[in-house]
Amino acid sequence: MKKFSGIVAGVSLLVAAGSVWAAGNTAADSYKQHFKPITMKYVDNPQNPVTPEKVELGKMLYHDPRLSKSGLFSCNTCHNLATWGMSKLPVDIGHGWALGPVNSGTVFNAAFYEAQFWDGRAKDLEEQAKGPILADVEMAMPSEEAAVARIASIPEYVTRFRVSFPGEAQSLTYDNIANAIAAFERTLITPGRWDRFLLGDAKALTAAEQQGMKAFVDLGCARCHNGIALGGGFEKMGLVKPYPSQSPSQGRYDVTGKPEDKNVFKMTTLRNIEHTYPYFHDGAVWNLDEAVKIMADIQLGRQLTAAQTESVVTFLRALTGEIPRQALVLPVLPASTPQTPRPDPN
Amino acid sequence: MKKFSGIVAGVSLLVAAGSVWAAGNTAADSYKQHFKPITMKYVDNPQNPVTPEKVELGKMLYHDPRLSKSGLFSCNTCHNLATWGMSKLPVDIGHGWALGPVNSGTVFNAAFYEAQFWDGRAKDLEEQAKGPILADVEMAMPSEEAAVARIASIPEYVTRFRVSFPGEAQSLTYDNIANAIAAFERTLITPGRWDRFLLGDAKALTAAEQQGMKAFVDLGCARCHNGIALGGGFEKMGLVKPYPSQSPSQGRYDVTGKPEDKNVFKMTTLRNIEHTYPYFHDGAVWNLDEAVKIMADIQLGRQLTAAQTESVVTFLRALTGEIPRQALVLPVLPASTPQTPRPDPN
Repeated sequence: MKKFSGIVAGVSLLVAAGSVWAAGNTAADSYKQHFKPITMKYVDNPQNPVTPEKVELGKMLYHDPRLSKSGLFSCNTCHNLATWGMSKLPVDIGHGWALGPVNSGTVFNAAFYEAQFWDGRAKDLEEQAKGPILADVEMAMPSEEAAVARIASIPEYVTRFRVSFPGEAQSLTYDNIANAIAAFERTLITPGRWDRFLLGDAKALTAAEQQGMKAFVDLGCARCHNGIALGGGFEKMGLVKPYPSQSPSQGRYDVTGKPEDKNVFKMTTLRNIEHTYPYFHDGAVWNLDEAVKIMADIQLGRQLTAAQTESVVTFLRALTGEIPRQALVLPVLPASTPQTPRPDPN
Repeated sequence: MKKFSGIVAGVSLLVAAGSVWAAGNTAADSYKQHFKPITMKYVDNPQNPVTPEKVELGKMLYHDPRLSKSGLFSCNTCHNLATWGMSKLPVDIGHGWALGPVNSGTVFNAAFYEAQFWDGRAKDLEEQAKGPILADVEMAMPSEEAAVARIASIPEYVTRFRVSFPGEAQSLTYDNIANAIAAFERTLITPGRWDRFLLGDAKALTAAEQQGMKAFVDLGCARCHNGIALGGGFEKMGLVKPYPSQSPSQGRYDVTGKPEDKNVFKMTTLRNIEHTYPYFHDGAVWNLDEAVKIMADIQLGRQLTAAQTESVVTFLRALTGEIPRQALVLPVLPASTPQTPRPDPN
C-alpha cells in the first residue's frame, strides 16, 4: 500500500512509537511493525480543515434526505452509522429501486484511504461526497444546482454554511456541501483495543488474537493489508486466481483504461471487518471465514486449514473498534420552507 | 376527542393543575382548560410496561433494516427521528418503489393517540408496529415468521428479548418485536415551553403566542384539537365542506364500513406541527398557513383573514417541543450470523 498523501493527524496522541515497542515483547514487535495505531481524533485535510462547526453541519447534511431527488435517501441510508457505516446489502438500492453495481462499503475509517470508491475514482472524501448525490441509480439529484437549491432554501443551513466557511463570498456551494459532509466523515474513525495493543498494552489482545496476528502476517495477508487501515490502497483482486465476480466493475481499469488496472480495486479497511459484511466489491460473500479462505486462495495461492482460518478470523475480530458516541447522536434537521423544491419520486 | 383509554402516566410530574391555574391569569386560564401538559417521561401501557431494557431493545429494532424484506427500510426510514418522526414525503416510498396511500405521520407523541393509523385500525402502538413490517408496499416481510427468523438468528437479540420479557417461555415472538418497538415509541414524547406555560409559567409563551392560543380557541379549533396531544381522536375531514383528497383512503369507513365513518380520520397531534409537514392524510399541503386556512374553511366554515391565520400559526409554532436526547442516540446494531436469512430486493 502506498503511503497516505494529504493527510495530517488531527490531535496526535502518539507517543514515540519506537520507544514503546522497544519496551514490549520483541517477537510480537516485529509483527506489529506492519501496522499503525489510530492516534488522532480525526483525519484532517489542510484543504478542508476539520472544525466543530463544519462537522456539525456535515452531520446534518449526511442525514438529510433532501439531498436526494425523491427525499427518501440520505448519505446515511447506504452508509448507515447504526450498521457500521454501510447498508450491509450486497449492492445498494437507489432511486426507482435501481440496484447499484458494487457494494457500498463502510464510511468508518474511510478517511484513511488513499482514494475513494472501489475503483478509486475520487481522490478523497471531499470528492467522493459529490458522486452519490448526483448518481442516477443512487440519490438522483438532477444537478449540482438542484442540490444547492434545496439546501439554500433553508435559512438555518444558509447561516451554518456562512459560519462553517468563513471568508468565502459564496459559502453555500455544491463543493462546500461535499466539504462539510467530508469533514464529518473525517471524524468517523474507530480506535479500539487493537490500537491500545499497538501502542504497547500487550494485554489488549488475547494470546489467541496475537497468534492470529502472527498467522495473518506469516501467511502474507499484511503484504497488502497493513498500515493504519489494514487496507485503503490498491491491489489486484485475483493475483493468483481470478475472482468469480458478480459485479460489472473492473475496478481501476474503468477509470484509467490501462490493461494492468483490470480488477485492481481499492482495498477496504479490515478494521471492524466482522461487522462490514457482505464482503468484496460485489458483496457476494457473507461469512468472514469464507472471505478469508477466498482471499488466501486467489491472492496468495494458499488453501487454509480450518485452524488457520479460525486463527486469522480471531485476529480480524480483534480489529473491531469503538464508534465515537458523538457520531451516533442524530441531528435534528431544520424545516423546509415554502421555497424548498419538493421531493420527486419520479 | 374522547378520553384516552389504557394509558397511564409514567412518571407524573403533575402538580394539582387547578391550583396552579387559579394563581395565574384568569383570562388565559379559561383558554388553557382545553389543553393538558405533558407531565410524564413516557406513556406507559400496563399490558406492555415500559422498562429500560425493553426501550433499548425497541430502539434497536426501530432502526434495524433487517425487519424489511429488502434490508433497506427500518421503522426509522418513514418515521425518521432526525426529521421529527416522519419522512416528510407526501406518501412514503416502500418495497419496490411502491407509493403508499397516505402520509406517514409523526411518531413523536403518537403514544397519546386514541388509536393508530389515519383510519384508526390499530388500537395502540403495539398493534400499529405489526403493520408496516408486513405491508407489501412498505417493509414487505412475507410473514411474521420471516421477521422473527431474521431477529432470532442474532444471539444478542435473543438475549435482549429474554431480559426484556422475563418469565415468558417464548420471549422472541412477533408480538414482542412490536411490543419492544412500541415501548421505545412510548418514550418519544416532546414536552416544551407550551407545557411550562400550561403548568403556570406565563412567560413561557410570548404575548403574541398567547393571543394566538385565544384565537385558536375562539375560532373553534380546540373543539377537536384539545387535550394533551391537541389531536389524536377521530373527526370527520370536511365537516362543512368536502376536502379535495388526493388519497384513496376514506378513513375510518375503510375499517368499519359504516356510512357515518366516511372521511373520518384520526387527527394528528398539533405538537411540533411546524415540522410535521406535508399536512393531512394525503400529505398534499406543504405550508402551515395554508393548512390552517383549509381547516378553518372545511371544518368551521370560516374564511380566515391574513391576521387571523398568522395569529393561529404563531400559536402553533409555540407547540414545538424538545426531542429527548436519548431518543436521538443511534444504537449500534449487532451483526448478522450465517443463519440470518439474507435481504431480498425482489
